[in-house]
Amino acid sequence: MRQINAFESPRFTQISTFARLPTCNGKEKAAFIGIPFDDGVVYRPGARFGPMAIRDGSRLLRPYNPFVDSEPFDELMMCDDGDVNVVPGYIEDTMRRIEEHLSQEFVNKIPLIAGGDHSITLPVLRALHKVKGKANLIHFDSHYDFWDTYFGGKKYTHGTWLRRALEEDRVNNVYQIGIRGSLFSKEDLSDAKKLGVHVFNIRDVKYNYNKIIQELRKLNGPVYISLDIDVVDPAFAPATGTPEVGGLTSFEVMELLRSLEVNIVGMDVVEVSPPYDHSEITAMLAANLIYEVASVISRNLRP
Amino acid sequence: MRQINAFESPRFTQISTFARLPTCNGKEKAAFIGIPFDDGVVYRPGARFGPMAIRDGSRLLRPYNPFVDSEPFDELMMCDDGDVNVVPGYIEDTMRRIEEHLSQEFVNKIPLIAGGDHSITLPVLRALHKVKGKANLIHFDSHYDFWDTYFGGKKYTHGTWLRRALEEDRVNNVYQIGIRGSLFSKEDLSDAKKLGVHVFNIRDVKYNYNKIIQELRKLNGPVYISLDIDVVDPAFAPATGTPEVGGLTSFEVMELLRSLEVNIVGMDVVEVSPPYDHSEITAMLAANLIYEVASVISRNLRP
Amino acid sequence: MRQINAFESPRFTQISTFARLPTCNGKEKAAFIGIPFDDGVVYRPGARFGPMAIRDGSRLLRPYNPFVDSEPFDELMMCDDGDVNVVPGYIEDTMRRIEEHLSQEFVNKIPLIAGGDHSITLPVLRALHKVKGKANLIHFDSHYDFWDTYFGGKKYTHGTWLRRALEEDRVNNVYQIGIRGSLFSKEDLSDAKKLGVHVFNIRDVKYNYNKIIQELRKLNGPVYISLDIDVVDPAFAPATGTPEVGGLTSFEVMELLRSLEVNIVGMDVVEVSPPYDHSEITAMLAANLIYEVASVISRNLRP
Amino acid sequence: MRQINAFESPRFTQISTFARLPTCNGKEKAAFIGIPFDDGVVYRPGARFGPMAIRDGSRLLRPYNPFVDSEPFDELMMCDDGDVNVVPGYIEDTMRRIEEHLSQEFVNKIPLIAGGDHSITLPVLRALHKVKGKANLIHFDSHYDFWDTYFGGKKYTHGTWLRRALEEDRVNNVYQIGIRGSLFSKEDLSDAKKLGVHVFNIRDVKYNYNKIIQELRKLNGPVYISLDIDVVDPAFAPATGTPEVGGLTSFEVMELLRSLEVNIVGMDVVEVSPPYDHSEITAMLAANLIYEVASVISRNLRP
Amino acid sequence: MRQINAFESPRFTQISTFARLPTCNGKEKAAFIGIPFDDGVVYRPGARFGPMAIRDGSRLLRPYNPFVDSEPFDELMMCDDGDVNVVPGYIEDTMRRIEEHLSQEFVNKIPLIAGGDHSITLPVLRALHKVKGKANLIHFDSHYDFWDTYFGGKKYTHGTWLRRALEEDRVNNVYQIGIRGSLFSKEDLSDAKKLGVHVFNIRDVKYNYNKIIQELRKLNGPVYISLDIDVVDPAFAPATGTPEVGGLTSFEVMELLRSLEVNIVGMDVVEVSPPYDHSEITAMLAANLIYEVASVISRNLRP
Amino acid sequence: MRQINAFESPRFTQISTFARLPTCNGKEKAAFIGIPFDDGVVYRPGARFGPMAIRDGSRLLRPYNPFVDSEPFDELMMCDDGDVNVVPGYIEDTMRRIEEHLSQEFVNKIPLIAGGDHSITLPVLRALHKVKGKANLIHFDSHYDFWDTYFGGKKYTHGTWLRRALEEDRVNNVYQIGIRGSLFSKEDLSDAKKLGVHVFNIRDVKYNYNKIIQELRKLNGPVYISLDIDVVDPAFAPATGTPEVGGLTSFEVMELLRSLEVNIVGMDVVEVSPPYDHSEITAMLAANLIYEVASVISRNLRP
Repeated sequence: MRQINAFESPRFTQISTFARLPTCNGKEKAAFIGIPFDDGVVYRPGARFGPMAIRDGSRLLRPYNPFVDSEPFDELMMCDDGDVNVVPGYIEDTMRRIEEHLSQEFVNKIPLIAGGDHSITLPVLRALHKVKGKANLIHFDSHYDFWDTYFGGKKYTHGTWLRRALEEDRVNNVYQIGIRGSLFSKEDLSDAKKLGVHVFNIRDVKYNYNKIIQELRKLNGPVYISLDIDVVDPAFAPATGTPEVGGLTSFEVMELLRSLEVNIVGMDVVEVSPPYDHSEITAMLAANLIYEVASVISRNLRP
Repeated sequence: MRQINAFESPRFTQISTFARLPTCNGKEKAAFIGIPFDDGVVYRPGARFGPMAIRDGSRLLRPYNPFVDSEPFDELMMCDDGDVNVVPGYIEDTMRRIEEHLSQEFVNKIPLIAGGDHSITLPVLRALHKVKGKANLIHFDSHYDFWDTYFGGKKYTHGTWLRRALEEDRVNNVYQIGIRGSLFSKEDLSDAKKLGVHVFNIRDVKYNYNKIIQELRKLNGPVYISLDIDVVDPAFAPATGTPEVGGLTSFEVMELLRSLEVNIVGMDVVEVSPPYDHSEITAMLAANLIYEVASVISRNLRP
Repeated sequence: MRQINAFESPRFTQISTFARLPTCNGKEKAAFIGIPFDDGVVYRPGARFGPMAIRDGSRLLRPYNPFVDSEPFDELMMCDDGDVNVVPGYIEDTMRRIEEHLSQEFVNKIPLIAGGDHSITLPVLRALHKVKGKANLIHFDSHYDFWDTYFGGKKYTHGTWLRRALEEDRVNNVYQIGIRGSLFSKEDLSDAKKLGVHVFNIRDVKYNYNKIIQELRKLNGPVYISLDIDVVDPAFAPATGTPEVGGLTSFEVMELLRSLEVNIVGMDVVEVSPPYDHSEITAMLAANLIYEVASVISRNLRP
Repeated sequence: MRQINAFESPRFTQISTFARLPTCNGKEKAAFIGIPFDDGVVYRPGARFGPMAIRDGSRLLRPYNPFVDSEPFDELMMCDDGDVNVVPGYIEDTMRRIEEHLSQEFVNKIPLIAGGDHSITLPVLRALHKVKGKANLIHFDSHYDFWDTYFGGKKYTHGTWLRRALEEDRVNNVYQIGIRGSLFSKEDLSDAKKLGVHVFNIRDVKYNYNKIIQELRKLNGPVYISLDIDVVDPAFAPATGTPEVGGLTSFEVMELLRSLEVNIVGMDVVEVSPPYDHSEITAMLAANLIYEVASVISRNLRP
Repeated sequence: MRQINAFESPRFTQISTFARLPTCNGKEKAAFIGIPFDDGVVYRPGARFGPMAIRDGSRLLRPYNPFVDSEPFDELMMCDDGDVNVVPGYIEDTMRRIEEHLSQEFVNKIPLIAGGDHSITLPVLRALHKVKGKANLIHFDSHYDFWDTYFGGKKYTHGTWLRRALEEDRVNNVYQIGIRGSLFSKEDLSDAKKLGVHVFNIRDVKYNYNKIIQELRKLNGPVYISLDIDVVDPAFAPATGTPEVGGLTSFEVMELLRSLEVNIVGMDVVEVSPPYDHSEITAMLAANLIYEVASVISRNLRP
Repeated sequence: MRQINAFESPRFTQISTFARLPTCNGKEKAAFIGIPFDDGVVYRPGARFGPMAIRDGSRLLRPYNPFVDSEPFDELMMCDDGDVNVVPGYIEDTMRRIEEHLSQEFVNKIPLIAGGDHSITLPVLRALHKVKGKANLIHFDSHYDFWDTYFGGKKYTHGTWLRRALEEDRVNNVYQIGIRGSLFSKEDLSDAKKLGVHVFNIRDVKYNYNKIIQELRKLNGPVYISLDIDVVDPAFAPATGTPEVGGLTSFEVMELLRSLEVNIVGMDVVEVSPPYDHSEITAMLAANLIYEVASVISRNLRP
């Protein structure tokens, strides 16, 4: 058993690594990594404390996932690889550091990333592209994130990373799940089409759930999952930077993740902003979503 | 674009008007108005801070509503008309001020009102009646609000406004949606019938959703919408004065509002009590509900 | 009317008994009882403040339950019987006191218990067994609670009470509802079978709701209901010691309770940990769940 | 010992009366009484929950006060007399009920009152005047509370009660302690003089502490103490309706109370607004201030 | 009277400008200005919401300051000039916008600035220097803020602005008040001397209060005041980004400000991070500190 | 430099050890150790999360303490030694584990302990006695903690540890600092004398500060410091189990610690209960108090 034994050492004891797993020594198949950067946000910051909170909120995770029939910590020899050393206030420097750091990770491991805000996903995708070529992207979010620029032409924010990734041709098929909320203009809808992004909005999730699952099963090739916690309703995930009411329940997003029968090569959960949490409900949900994806990876890797 | 441009001026900047819209100058078709009175409550006060919180919580709203296909701010030339000057501690004086103030508003504009507690709806309906004659009422709430008197014969509280409105013959058909929770006695059920109120309780919403939508579509003539935030479950809207567990989700109430194909002449969202909120989730929901109704009005007004 | 009259004395006034009911004098049929012990928890404590918070959170309850068509306070002559005098830090001494105290209660009354952590249910079941013989157990929870020992062989915790009850042959049929979350090992699944426990996990509740209701209706003989508040999702019940995301909604658990057409001889709601609550949403939910069960008891007792 | 024994029944158990004292039966010398009215406030409401919170926050009080050398609960046979049945939304009706209720109390007992907002002190002083004649008033507050009217001539609010009491000639000498914060105009200063009120402002407390104590010792005749919790700095008492920064510490106010060697015939602690508290620090402070005054009464009554 | 009249319109009503003052039209002598930028912080962000919170927290301010004998709103014709349009994530662009914006303000008005983090003070000093030449700086803080670079040579953060200002020769005499907390190395002490900064640490404030006041009175020429809210103890100001325990009380900092008999040409209160506040105690304190400085300016300007 | 470099790796990054120090490898002189046990409390639990919160709250500590002129991390080669594996619910088993674990620590290191509740100090003193003989005890607290038994003769709680230590003759001179609050009876005062405990109550600290410092300087031989965070006022340290209002400020307790010129062989900070904290102010204070004591140890050890 890789975790500290909860029957000997109560789960509120000892130093907080993800799920009380060991730190990495290089031979593991999957690693929890924090990218605590939040200067890409256009509303509420705080996601820089995401990795710290998700580690604290992961202490109740246990080895076996009965709904996926998987023991991800053991099967993937999972470890905690600490955080990327970001540069607060300097988004472009930070992006270089992330890309460099992740370029190492993707060679040997499946990174399970805790943000940070969504701007971190662009350099992660650059690293992934460099190491493994173009992957598909399944993007859980309430927002499109493919706006062009903000604030006088600024290209890098948590609302523009996807357009940059598409412009740079870093990804194959893109599926967005859970989109909702007001838009800047009706053109946002046509932009999705122009950009070739497949959109399942909140009504699709609520009313055509099975169809989404079937569509996603058709995906070939490596898949990267990027999950903005604001895809979940603020009742379940209040701790986020740009909340959108009327969202998914935690059960719905967990079931969607469990249904993925694709080749996942990496994932992130972003936009968890702990100053806005209460009683750790968002941090615990985020830790569980990482756990579900790890479980699915573990299951899918089995011969 | 009527809102301050979010691509130039980040949404956390500048003075808080509703959705960062301009203040009113008289020519607009719809106006956000605050009625910050809460001495009508029989349990938790605090709704006097509702308008302030809903303004702060409306900063993320964007111009285009994709689910309703509507740009309410531009189409209705929407503005923020400040607050009614209420008289704390003196409910009857306050009611006179509200009626007088709203009698002006209804002449030229569609008021989108943020309470305050539910007692404010009575003088609003008096003003509406005076200006436009009797309207239908769609009333979202967990409570009937047609009790007779409280505390030794007091006729004006947030639990008696609807009986007063019916006694004064201010409204036509009344539909209640979302009713639940324990009652003072079994006679409350028969009172609903005696008073001619059509009740869709929480089970109707959960199990006969489409039937409700069909019923409401049959409504002719002007419609006023009064939405007590406690119709939503406390998980989604903790900041309210008399919470009832086991309620609607935010998605359900939003979809109900979007489905309304009637002639809406005014609306209120009441009972948002910010001291009981966390991370603004209730205030943001309330702001979005006002936005959804504005979007529907805008859509329905189109030829 | 047994409650203090809310039309004369506002519901925020007077000393907090459950639902502002009178204290017990011995002739009542059902009693609210607090068991404020929480040294059985293996993660977050705080449930010792459960009875105090649930009393405060029960002030909005009214006499008539329209969904069950029942007036439990009057029909059961319900009262508040104070708390059991527990011994903080000494679980085995506390268990003896609980068993002794409840052995009195079960003789004449139906106890409606507010925990306290789940370890209190074992001595309650011992008392029930002693007074009324073996009853069936309907157990709402996200966790199995039938682990063997913790921390070097400790037999009494909130995660082991059910195994002890089964070993001691205190209960007949056991039904678990709402089980979810990661497990210590795959053997937990087979242990359920070995122990003869009938498990309806979260998927069963979400996807086979009616089947559960039908199964439970078949139960003969006395039934004890033990409800761990963590069966509900943390969005609806954040105030608990070992939260599991992805759970029931408050509406779902209320409907399940209302559907029970069995002979209920006692019940508990446990693991409400008020330091983790906000705006009393968990305490209010717990008070309502006790109210729903009281209503069902009252209905089912009618000839 | 009048309190429930904390060595047998832990202090988090049993129904919340003040300090876990018995309810009154008529023969006691001093009684805790709640007056949960808050429609007199001109900013944040919530003080209606003051008595409930102060009862919960008084559980840690023990029988002996070493700084005053007094056992107030036993010496005064102190009890909890419940709450006055106020009328939410109707300040003048409520004032009549308070006056009537307190007119009974003052005959036989020393009332130790938990507000409610400061408007309740006027009817209390009316009752005191009626029963015992004119008393002196020691008024701890950051605000003068002798403004004339608000909101178009309204005479009864939490900011006007003292002018009314002076106009009605209900009190003898008036001492104000802790006054600070911005004023409506420079005339407020001269009004204090015109009204004959002796003012010790915050600087007097911080820099001339002993002089205040000496002055107060000179008071002859019965004394009523009215303590607005906002006399204390918001760091120590965040839960209040119109906070003023730069105030007293909790130690300073406690020492001032302990130094009073006068004939106290009643007291109130008002403006505790629990929705704005955290971890009960304000409620606990308020409970302790009542305890200090009870201790002083007990000491001063000794021959 | 410039503020909305609180005797007609309760202070919780109407749109939130600072102290409910009018927006600026160009002829005023002093203006409240928000600079909601927080990407300069090296620990907790959130100060971008400072101006919004300080406006909300300023509603209780009244026209007359009795301790300074001043009516700053009227005497200075004070107004609210909105916020500078910052560029989240891009500190150097933001600094240019601030400098440009403030260069206008300093020509005609005394700006009273609400941050934002402390990095905003550098461009403010640049603007001040450009318009009025070198001023003295009185800097209230727990930290020196003259470190050289962070994170691989980054020159602009909230911990380096003072060194930049000194390097650029923007200020005359610099006095620091309230310095405390652990340091990066002993050289920080000698750096203060090398840089010519006069330091009054926390012990100087606590033990040599009057000496500080006398020293500051000697300052000739224009003075700019920069007040980091973390100079106050976290008990009084929890809402800040890099709290240091063991700090000033709110009374102490207010008295220090009131004692300033110098020619103040501008001021800022920075590092108020509302996500970390409770019941607005920090925001209210910040609003009062701005009010105290405005009062002092008003008094000092009198002939 | 032993800490992770804050100029390269921002202080919100990387896994939480105390002050981001390395874990222990055996050769260090001082170690941070967590003892997360809280079943000894008689009111609010939660201190089991103390070590986790204090680690998170220690991230802002820097290497040099200017008020003590000391670099404790380097001079003591300080490290983080994880937590003792406690046994929730079983106080006597836990005490054995603590004694055993600490018996190792005291041989080679100076342990700087984060509780946990105050019951942990008894086994720590047993270990200290065993390894180093009898030490003096400086005990900061608002409570005496020398009561005999609770709840029917229970000898081990957080209110009885000191009597046990005295009965077992584990300590030499005992000094208590900060004592205040109501007592169970007047005999508590004489018990202090009988037990030979030197008491400096809150008035001694406030009014005879220097005398205390002089007295403590006379202490010869090894000294153990046990600091219950409730010695500080709840305004500065709300997160504790049995708060007493009217306490020390954070500055006062820090100055008392800095003044200690004695041979400190170990210390603990106990009773930090994070569920009751806000914005980490208590956790940060506790981390700083450990840092101050480490600084003093480092200074005093210098030749």
